[in-house]
Amino acid sequence: MANIDHLGIAVRSIEQAQRLYQALGLTVLKEEEEDEGVRSVMIPLGDSRLRLLEPLDKTTSVARFLEQHGEGVHHVALHVPDLPKAVEALKANGTRLMSDEIKIGAGGHHYVFIHPSSAGGVLVELVATPETA
Amino acid sequence: MANIDHLGIAVRSIEQAQRLYQALGLTVLKEEEEDEGVRSVMIPLGDSRLRLLEPLDKTTSVARFLEQHGEGVHHVALHVPDLPKAVEALKANGTRLMSDEIKIGAGGHHYVFIHPSSAGGVLVELVATPETA
Repeated sequence: MANIDHLGIAVRSIEQAQRLYQALGLTVLKEEEEDEGVRSVMIPLGDSRLRLLEPLDKTTSVARFLEQHGEGVHHVALHVPDLPKAVEALKANGTRLMSDEIKIGAGGHHYVFIHPSSAGGVLVELVATPETA
Repeated sequence: MANIDHLGIAVRSIEQAQRLYQALGLTVLKEEEEDEGVRSVMIPLGDSRLRLLEPLDKTTSVARFLEQHGEGVHHVALHVPDLPKAVEALKANGTRLMSDEIKIGAGGHHYVFIHPSSAGGVLVELVATPETA
């Protein structure tokens, strides 16, 4: 079954943004490694997570997003059970993808981004764990 | 435990925006009633839901959002187990709320909105079902 894997929220300061979630009694998990010029923390929420993203490097897409839109939801990641099948269905449907091929992230997960023009203005990421990808 | 109740996504056309989710094999549930000048459909995703919002009335906040930002994530609703306790903690924390009081929605759920300036640019809604509110 599909679920919301995480929401990526672009913020200027993780220290500032995490205060709200700490006040709500939620757990803020520090990530160990920086990934492509972005530091982040995870906030588990049911079967999903919020991921606060703070750019360390001005050339990252998160930094450009902040410059253009200010803080806010950068992307919505949906976990799908069968990523190749999903990509095939989207291509047949005329959905615009950010890349033709499924990519593999630092953590080994498989992913593809859908262009916001095909997803109601939202940058949607489809992710799958290696076992299901 | 808290979870993501739903993501409210502002779209110009539900018929257009729902195609992506239908292509992914997800169920799009039609809502029966219009609520305050907005029609919507729900897409269940694990313990959460996407809610596509299409304004019927140009004076609604969703219509204004579309005019200012274009299509995209309008709000993130978090389900919390104890809403009065959460509101109290946020007020003590200096968090800016959109209203001082907890409101009751058409479906009987209790809710309060947090100002985006206190939530990393995101319009966060806290919701609770009447049993837990």
